[in-house]
Amino acid sequence: MMTSPSNGPGASADFDLTHYLAAKREVVNQTLEVMLGAPSAEDKLACAMKYSIMAGGKRLRPVLCLAAAETVGGNPYDALPTACALEMIHTYSLIHDDLPAMDDDQLRRGRPTCHVAFDEATAILAGDALLTLAFEQLAANANRRHVSAPKRLDIIRIVAAAAGCRGMIEGQMQDMTSEGGRLPMASLEKMHLLKTGALIRAAVKCGAILGNGSQTQIDRLDRYARSIGLAFQVTDDILNVEGDPALMGKAVGTDQHRSKTTYPALLGMAESKGLAQKLVSRALQALDIFDNRSEPLRAIAAYVVERKR
Amino acid sequence: MMTSPSNGPGASADFDLTHYLAAKREVVNQTLEVMLGAPSAEDKLACAMKYSIMAGGKRLRPVLCLAAAETVGGNPYDALPTACALEMIHTYSLIHDDLPAMDDDQLRRGRPTCHVAFDEATAILAGDALLTLAFEQLAANANRRHVSAPKRLDIIRIVAAAAGCRGMIEGQMQDMTSEGGRLPMASLEKMHLLKTGALIRAAVKCGAILGNGSQTQIDRLDRYARSIGLAFQVTDDILNVEGDPALMGKAVGTDQHRSKTTYPALLGMAESKGLAQKLVSRALQALDIFDNRSEPLRAIAAYVVERKR
Repeated sequence: MMTSPSNGPGASADFDLTHYLAAKREVVNQTLEVMLGAPSAEDKLACAMKYSIMAGGKRLRPVLCLAAAETVGGNPYDALPTACALEMIHTYSLIHDDLPAMDDDQLRRGRPTCHVAFDEATAILAGDALLTLAFEQLAANANRRHVSAPKRLDIIRIVAAAAGCRGMIEGQMQDMTSEGGRLPMASLEKMHLLKTGALIRAAVKCGAILGNGSQTQIDRLDRYARSIGLAFQVTDDILNVEGDPALMGKAVGTDQHRSKTTYPALLGMAESKGLAQKLVSRALQALDIFDNRSEPLRAIAAYVVERKR
Repeated sequence: MMTSPSNGPGASADFDLTHYLAAKREVVNQTLEVMLGAPSAEDKLACAMKYSIMAGGKRLRPVLCLAAAETVGGNPYDALPTACALEMIHTYSLIHDDLPAMDDDQLRRGRPTCHVAFDEATAILAGDALLTLAFEQLAANANRRHVSAPKRLDIIRIVAAAAGCRGMIEGQMQDMTSEGGRLPMASLEKMHLLKTGALIRAAVKCGAILGNGSQTQIDRLDRYARSIGLAFQVTDDILNVEGDPALMGKAVGTDQHRSKTTYPALLGMAESKGLAQKLVSRALQALDIFDNRSEPLRAIAAYVVERKR
């Protein structure tokens, strides 16, 4: 299922984001297939891992990682294993967040969640195993000729810090403990900067580093990533109110049902959409030092708020 | 609470294992304290992580890692961060194994399990965060002057492979799916070689590598680790029948209650104890190329089957 995003205000008219996303997703999916292997039907753990990761996600984090490497003039193939490891970490976080003790979601990417399709114990272990496999792949030697060992350790540190107890997991913790209460704007933003923002920033940063970007380039791309991470979350909140569940592959209206603080609840719908646009503008500004190799990132910034799923 | 293990058949009479274990545990605990920090009471995630990891475990994996480095003539301090990372991974696995959807255990190391002391969502996230922190520490720069970057990547690969879907997690999966049915001996051994054996072997192997051991030394230590890993599990099964819950800090009789296949159930109690002794002998044999710097490992082999908890 392919959406047809516009090219965004900062991208040239002849850049085809739909084609770009499809091509990048294809190479990410093929690499993930190789990394996950072809499990036999009796290998329930491997089947659950593969079921969740090959469920047709947007692959936003890996695409951002590859596009960031290209933006600084690097070879995206040097960033490919890291891009795939980031998708494993994202998928593990979804599997665990969907568990009955957490968000208790039944539907994800248009299919039953992992613990519904398999069982709760298998879902916990499949998440654990995807997280572990991500680090195994980050440390693996295959196709890493052009990346020095110290740089690979840097990447592992950045990814682990973004995914851990001062990053994504802390964000999920804040999300869990804030349910039912009304968060002030600053706390809502802080929570999202951790829960979704940290891994999105890590994806862009790792891409920039693996593409051999300068410190100035890395800093600019980090500003970009911070803005689109928030824009992504504001849009998620909007889609949870206005989205089409058939397109999104998951239920809508769940935030209100759980009394979650959201941008539309705090700001109203019109102002939330304005905020998303403002964040996209800020992201595009951060890219103004780059040449036309930043077109994919420009188009993705617009896509993040225009997407229907 | 300190047991008083004998020095074992292969160790000299004046080697004091009790003192050795206490000293190594002390340095491991101090390092873990630094790695985990001092969370404020409101930081529930960090409190749960610290609650579980500072609950007074035996620290078998870190001690084995440090002792292996010493056995090959290395500096155990070079192995200390890895030793602590292995304990984080062990602790995360206990937190997740204790969850209601898995073994549903209420007591661990003499205290309420993490999901009982906190809640299920917090326990899932605390486990995830300890696993992630382990890899962050393995990639961290602090106190790693003497270990090259390629070697540190080797260590991350070994640890991730041992902990992942072809190691510890697959062992737990096999343990879950075999409950209620009677496993043949070969399947029971295979399950334990994965569930507890893989991480114990990784601990010894990493210690040997970080201590700059030769390939022959590493191979011998791997044979040692394979045998004591199994001996440890046979003893666990024996203690689950005969152990004192007050000393062990957890319930006994749980294997029978869950219709788990155990060594005593398959072989009887006397033959199980014989097997444990045979495995210890095999472990000691593997050490016969080493000088007296292997005394700690010799004494630990005996301790593994003589321990009361």
